[in-house]
Amino acid sequence: MENIIELNSRIVASSDVVGTFEARGPLGEYFKYCDVNNDDRFGQKTWEQSESEMQRQALANALKNVGRKAAEIDALFAGDLENQCIASAYGLMGFGIPYFGLYGACSTAVEGLLLSSMCVSKKIFSHVASVTSSHFCTAERQFRMPVEYGSQKTPTAQRTVTGAAAFIQKFADKREGAIIKEGVCGIVRDYGIIDTANMGAAMAPAALDTLLRYFRASGRQIKDFDMILTGDLGHEGGDILCRLMKTEGYDIFGIYEDCGKLIFSRETQDTHAGGSGCGCSAVVFSAYILPKIESGELKNVLFIGTGAMMSPLGIMQGKTIPSVAHLVHVSSAK
Amino acid sequence: MENIIELNSRIVASSDVVGTFEARGPLGEYFKYCDVNNDDRFGQKTWEQSESEMQRQALANALKNVGRKAAEIDALFAGDLENQCIASAYGLMGFGIPYFGLYGACSTAVEGLLLSSMCVSKKIFSHVASVTSSHFCTAERQFRMPVEYGSQKTPTAQRTVTGAAAFIQKFADKREGAIIKEGVCGIVRDYGIIDTANMGAAMAPAALDTLLRYFRASGRQIKDFDMILTGDLGHEGGDILCRLMKTEGYDIFGIYEDCGKLIFSRETQDTHAGGSGCGCSAVVFSAYILPKIESGELKNVLFIGTGAMMSPLGIMQGKTIPSVAHLVHVSSAK
Repeated sequence: MENIIELNSRIVASSDVVGTFEARGPLGEYFKYCDVNNDDRFGQKTWEQSESEMQRQALANALKNVGRKAAEIDALFAGDLENQCIASAYGLMGFGIPYFGLYGACSTAVEGLLLSSMCVSKKIFSHVASVTSSHFCTAERQFRMPVEYGSQKTPTAQRTVTGAAAFIQKFADKREGAIIKEGVCGIVRDYGIIDTANMGAAMAPAALDTLLRYFRASGRQIKDFDMILTGDLGHEGGDILCRLMKTEGYDIFGIYEDCGKLIFSRETQDTHAGGSGCGCSAVVFSAYILPKIESGELKNVLFIGTGAMMSPLGIMQGKTIPSVAHLVHVSSAK
Repeated sequence: MENIIELNSRIVASSDVVGTFEARGPLGEYFKYCDVNNDDRFGQKTWEQSESEMQRQALANALKNVGRKAAEIDALFAGDLENQCIASAYGLMGFGIPYFGLYGACSTAVEGLLLSSMCVSKKIFSHVASVTSSHFCTAERQFRMPVEYGSQKTPTAQRTVTGAAAFIQKFADKREGAIIKEGVCGIVRDYGIIDTANMGAAMAPAALDTLLRYFRASGRQIKDFDMILTGDLGHEGGDILCRLMKTEGYDIFGIYEDCGKLIFSRETQDTHAGGSGCGCSAVVFSAYILPKIESGELKNVLFIGTGAMMSPLGIMQGKTIPSVAHLVHVSSAK
């Protein structure tokens, strides 16, 4: 098994769209687009259609940022948390771009970045886009309870981020911007977690596995990186990962961040263990981390998308929660 | 937009597992594994776990056929029709192979073949597996009614195939066996079909679009192929596709086949418009078509996976059924 995929692609554009609650959080000033009506509906009648509209806006804006038409994009990798991934199917259909549908739960942002990077690095395609999203209200009613019920949350629960982001990549023919240099495809891991209000604990072992595979195969050390960034382990899962890494001889406490921890304020926003969802890692990376890589403020970032493939039906049948974590090493050309 | 992806991979092994109803159909003698207890449960307690077990058996047998251990497979592309694609996640977890989750509805078999082929053709990986499945009973209760209700079906309805298949590919360093030479990634198309009992009509325009893109870009003609094989358009969708192709100047009537038409007998099995599901195209291609390509009986086959990304929630919200169709050109080395 080859653990590390050598890559050479550049993220030439990205764009993010977030909900009102996310716009009021600590990263509010970094996000580019928010719902103008402040009701997270984005002008649509249903939550599901609102999520589709976020994906449409994210890709439309990313295309605008790079000055490309949809017809110049050779393929699209997309997915989301809705059953049958309809946020992506409906939201992106209008662009008419060849479409590879993904299901990676909250790891989808990095799964899409990784597969897109593979395609352009090996010149299978010239330009490839990846898009993902999540919406608090679609996720609540599909995985938990309709929001109208006002269910109480446990301390380990996370809040699904309302957000979408799109990334466009091409072969890195010159040293410029943010370069994806390496990738690792995650292995599905299941450590027996059955608590659907503790996704962080379910996903942490998958992130651990991917990081260990990366460090052992690459020979690189923690000091080679400015940041190790997970998608949505949150406060609970992030703590577990840092401790598990420590027991394996890797002290990541100083450089570890998590998009689910960054996006909400623990003090002023009542979000328990932090943010989650496909959109969480996508918008935080697009709006907050990627510009720091492009400017050279961050030189080398390991970005690990973490996904808990939690099925309400599987849980009812007594199954545990399988998770997967994909990794990309994003490097600054500066 | 690049329409055609040049490929050079060989399908070195495949294996199929089917249910009892499929084993009693016209292709019964070709299928390799069937449930020993004849109850389609494969020794499991729930239908969902039965579907997972089929995937596990399919991959285990494909590995055995090629004489490889799981650790020698660099990556896995897998997906199914269950929400959160848990048939794949649970079924394949035990192999410990890096896992790219897909969602392409019934197009998943070809989506997996195409992405695997891209990876080995460009030497990103040495050996890649793709696996998919569907199960009549999991699909009925998720998309339609629990089977116990005994709901009546309309004439355009199809029966979800109980079956799983796994394929293993490597770079084609010599002319041997079945070679994937080209691929086309499908574009999501939606012609406004809202009848969830007529998936054939929903998917036919997507298949048309992919075929037209292929023929126009490749300059090849119908006579260059022995067979144009769609995944699960069934009798209804297959007829629509042939007629639509005719209006575009391509007469495919003589060489057109569909896995959903081949798998069940219209005379003795009451399956209306034929078979459907991720497993339908996967098992028919693995058990019936692939050996004919390997033996040289079929020289050039266009295999088009057709997927209707039908969401019960989307339909309840008044949305139509978006579809996608991926294509691989599989050629005999003989």
